[in-house]
Order: sequence, then structure tokens, then C-alpha cells
Amino acid sequence: MTYQAPLLPSPFRCHRGGEIVGGQIAYETWGTLNPTKSNSVLIFTGLSPSAHAASSPADADSGWWEQLIGAGAALDTHRFHIICVNSLGSCFGSSGPASINPLTSVRYGDTFPDISIEDVAAGGRAVLDHLGIERAALIVGPSLGGSAVLAFAALHPGRARRLISISGTMAASAHAIALRSIQREAVRNDPIKGLRLARKLGTVTYRSAAELAARFGRAASSGGHDFAVQDYLDQQADKFTKTFDADSYLTLSRAIDLFDLNAHGDPTVLFQRAELESALVIGVEQDALFTIDEQTRIAAALRAGGIPTQLERVDSVAGHDAFLADQPLFAAIIARWLQDT
Amino acid sequence: MTYQAPLLPSPFRCHRGGEIVGGQIAYETWGTLNPTKSNSVLIFTGLSPSAHAASSPADADSGWWEQLIGAGAALDTHRFHIICVNSLGSCFGSSGPASINPLTSVRYGDTFPDISIEDVAAGGRAVLDHLGIERAALIVGPSLGGSAVLAFAALHPGRARRLISISGTMAASAHAIALRSIQREAVRNDPIKGLRLARKLGTVTYRSAAELAARFGRAASSGGHDFAVQDYLDQQADKFTKTFDADSYLTLSRAIDLFDLNAHGDPTVLFQRAELESALVIGVEQDALFTIDEQTRIAAALRAGGIPTQLERVDSVAGHDAFLADQPLFAAIIARWLQDT
Repeated sequence: MTYQAPLLPSPFRCHRGGEIVGGQIAYETWGTLNPTKSNSVLIFTGLSPSAHAASSPADADSGWWEQLIGAGAALDTHRFHIICVNSLGSCFGSSGPASINPLTSVRYGDTFPDISIEDVAAGGRAVLDHLGIERAALIVGPSLGGSAVLAFAALHPGRARRLISISGTMAASAHAIALRSIQREAVRNDPIKGLRLARKLGTVTYRSAAELAARFGRAASSGGHDFAVQDYLDQQADKFTKTFDADSYLTLSRAIDLFDLNAHGDPTVLFQRAELESALVIGVEQDALFTIDEQTRIAAALRAGGIPTQLERVDSVAGHDAFLADQPLFAAIIARWLQDT
Repeated sequence: MTYQAPLLPSPFRCHRGGEIVGGQIAYETWGTLNPTKSNSVLIFTGLSPSAHAASSPADADSGWWEQLIGAGAALDTHRFHIICVNSLGSCFGSSGPASINPLTSVRYGDTFPDISIEDVAAGGRAVLDHLGIERAALIVGPSLGGSAVLAFAALHPGRARRLISISGTMAASAHAIALRSIQREAVRNDPIKGLRLARKLGTVTYRSAAELAARFGRAASSGGHDFAVQDYLDQQADKFTKTFDADSYLTLSRAIDLFDLNAHGDPTVLFQRAELESALVIGVEQDALFTIDEQTRIAAALRAGGIPTQLERVDSVAGHDAFLADQPLFAAIIARWLQDT
């Protein structure tokens, strides 16, 4: 079930200035909150997904993390009360550029304030506040969501017992910034054709050269291009541009670039104060966008902060997208870690 | 000195069909052709350079391979007669989409025939024919030019004694095709803004993440962007779009994708017939676009064809662009190989 309510403090002061009045955060839940409100798992998403992480009686469509959430799954709905939040700035129920500004009754568009990962984390905290949950049992997120998890832990100490950060970053690399800035330039040039280009480039950077070679090689196109890999990029662009808002894309893409955990102090000190019992960091060797070295640095900072931290290096040709493409692999790692710690 | 003459057989039948009437190939030379016409080095270029590989009395501007060509340099003008050809389809004197079609007296634009790497190689052969050179002492080329060297050797047996292929490919990978198809889509969407985007994406793929991290990291922009790496991409786009024609870009980018040496038969058999005395293959470990594995396969095919072949693996954070950015490294390798063989 998707819930949407005016959950943000109003006015909500964004991390980079700007205010949102009557801000909403869409979220979805699975499982049951226990009487002590101590069994919640708070999930932050990557740039593009909605809060629909898994199917439910209210919405039978498969979610983006369908194989990780459910009865008996790694994130077990018999044990946990699972919450997934749609990022502030996105276009699936949470306030964003595609929303109507209640002060003007017109769509925000590019007048929506600059959003940072800190604000995405604050959106998750607002949902916990709304539900009266003092402390989440676990916060978890991949990609942008992995960074949001780190921001949440650092900036809302005591509000989570444990964390799982997957393929995130404490501060984006010049290479990733360069690629995302090109994607945003494409969208600013032409919101329709440019969003297609941006998603195609995203797809190439989310996967690996080895996977494209194995899946497509130099096979011929059946869609009017030269090569089958071009058909694949078309399909990815089609899927994405049907549902995603160009201004939300600009907002969230830039939010990842601008995030720098170091701006809040030494991450080691931030994590020392975070009151975390344990942490799991998962990275993918073949991830070209949020590299395995960045995952190693996250784990090192958590450990330096005194938090027992497990680092898992996943081998997957799906690259950055492995958390979507190789869900059983991630489910197994998470299930084992939850059992062992 | 740049020479430009109607050098192609007329009509010239392109590898993929289509004809060019009165086709021209621009080329430049350094050093002196010896009486037996046996000391020529034929250079093919990457996608974007002109035939101006080095300065000369007639043109004092630095060339794109300035540090490799000259008196006493690796490609020694006291010893060699050096020829660099502008690729057919380019826009620096050779016939291409930006040229006037002599049959219609209007600019070819997108009516210029599809060009393949085989045609680029044929352009080099036409220059040799024009100069009465039966056999080049050496053919050499980086990137697109590396593939052109392989095509020349395979399709014009006996016309070269030795070859150096740098960061080329016998058949582009799905990953490289995907990236170039995105660049071409950007240009087709908008020849001006899209060519900027294409060059920016090219720049990111030509260099390495390690280099961008070291040079720019998360330093702030001084040009109205968020980050300095975005200023750098702007500069690269500015330089490129001032001189390069969008239709030539489409033509030569697609030419690389379409090239497949295997279409002419088993490369081993092709190289067996090539009458080459020796070969040098140079690749860069950090090259994300024409990978070191592709260089290994090229060297293996040459060796299987009975050609004594040296494979040099260069370590350079400049990635695919190392042949431009780290010229002394390449000069040293080439000088040593020329001395030893």
C-alpha cells in the first residue's frame, strides 16, 4: 500500500537552502510494526525507483526489490516491518519538480529547490517520526539510497540500529560526476530526447562491458539500428521515459553529485556518534560508477568509527545494477549477515 | 605541407556500396622519399585529427603527434618519408559529408555514402599509388587508425613491410558500440548541442576515472558549473566543435562500429597473406574503449598469421588518449622496436 501524507515539517528547509511547504513523502510498507515499534526496516531507493519495492495485496505488481522482500525472504515480512520511501525530489508521490506547489498552485518544474542526499535522508526520518518509530532496526539502500543510508546514520544519530549500504558513495568521483553532468546537459537540451539519451548512457554505465559483450556482442539489430545492443538501449529508454519526470531526473542526478559526507565533518567522527550496532557494506567489483574502492572506503570509515562492519565484494557482470539484476546474490548476503549479527 | 588531389579512383566504390566521384584524399608529408621509394611511413589517424601530425616549414603549428615525428624522433625524418592521411569521410581536406559533391555542386551532408574502415585504408593506398610507392616501410595508426592499419594489411597484401597498431580493434565491442551510438544519437538530435555532448562523452571514455580523480577530484567549478571536471568537459567540447563537422563525426563514428575484419575471412589467414615482416601492437591497460584484451587478440591473430609480433602493454591513466597525452612513452616503445627489428 502506498501512503502519502504531508509528512515533512512545514516549511521544510532544504539542506542547500530553499523551502518546501506542505511537503509530502510517499512510502509503502510490508509486514507488521511490532508493539515496541522496534522491527522496522527503512529502505531508501536508487535514483529512479518508486517506493514499490515489492508486491503486496494492495498492489500485485512486482517491485524493484521483489526477491528480497516477503515472507521468509532476506527482508522477512514475518519478522520485519518494512518501509520503502520515495525520495524527496522524485515523481512517484513524494514532493518534487513534477508536483504542484501549494503556494502557487502550479507545477514546481525547475523552481523546485535543489535537493541533496541529506534531504532524501530527512524524508526517511519524517516517515519514522510520522509512524512514531524512535529507532529503525535497519536502514538499507542501494546506489543513491546507499548514500542516503550513510547520510541518515551520520545526521540522525540513534535513529537506526544497523545499516546496509550497497554501491553508494560518501562523495561522488570526478568520473561519475562527469558522466552525470553529461546526462543532465542532454536533458536540459531537450527534456524528451535528452531523457532518452541520459537513460541510455545510464544503462551503459550501470552495466559492464563484459555483460554487453556476452548478451549482445555484435549481433545485428532487429529494430532499425545496426546492432542489437542499440535495440536494448532503446528498450531501456522507452521504459524509463514513460514513467520518469525530466525535472526529477535533473534534481536527483545532481543531488548525488553534490553530496559530500565530509562536509559534515570527519566521517569517522560522524559514525562514532551514530549509535550503530553493526554495518554491512556491499559493493560490486565491476561497478564503474560507484567503484569497489569507494565501498572499501565506506567500510573503513565505519570501522574507524568503532562500528563492527562487514564488507562484501560481489562479482557480477551486471555492474552497478547487480542489486537489481542479481537479487538472489544480495538476498543471500543480507540474510546471512542478519543471521550472524 | 598538405597536399590534396583527386587521388581516389573515380568513381570510387565504397565498401558498403555507394560511389564517390572525384574523391580527394588530403595528406601531409615530412622527410624525403628515397630513390627506391622504400622509406615511407604511412600514418592513419584517430577519428578526429587532420593529416597535420607534426609541424613543418610550411605549417609551424604543432601537430597531433608532434613528439613522435621529426629529425631524430622515433619516426625520424632523416630516415623516413612520413605520410599522414586525412581519413576519407573526415573534414580536413579529404572528401566527406562537408565536401561539395561535384555531381550536384552542393554539400554532400547526409547523402555522403556510408564509409567503412576499409575505405579509410583504401584512401591510404591511393596516396601510395599516387606517389608511386609500391610498398610502405611501415604503416602505423592509433584508435580508428589502428583498425585502418589492420584493414590495410589484410586487404592490400604486400603494400607494407611492417605495421604498428595502437589501441585499435578488429571488431568493436558491444560496449564501445553502445557508447558511440549514444554519441551519434545526440548529434542527430541536434548537430550543434549534440556534438558538444558527444565530445564530452568521448572525453570521459577516452580518459580514465583515475586521471579525472587526480586532476579534478571534487574541485569547484570556475565556469558556472558545480565542479571543475565540468569546466574541463566544456573546454574539450569547445575545441572540438570549432573545427569538426557533425556529419563527418556521424560518418567516422559509425565506420568504427561497422568494421569487422572477420567479414573478410579468418584474420589469421588474412595476416598470413599480408607479407608483413613484423608487427608491433600497443595497448593501454586503462583503455575502457579499445581494451587491452582487444590488443592481445590482435597480437595473437598476427602471430597466428606467422608474423613476428611484439605486444606492448602501456600503463597510463590517460587511457585511450595515452597516444596523445603520453607521447614520449609511445615514442620510446616505437624507437626501440624500430631499432630491434
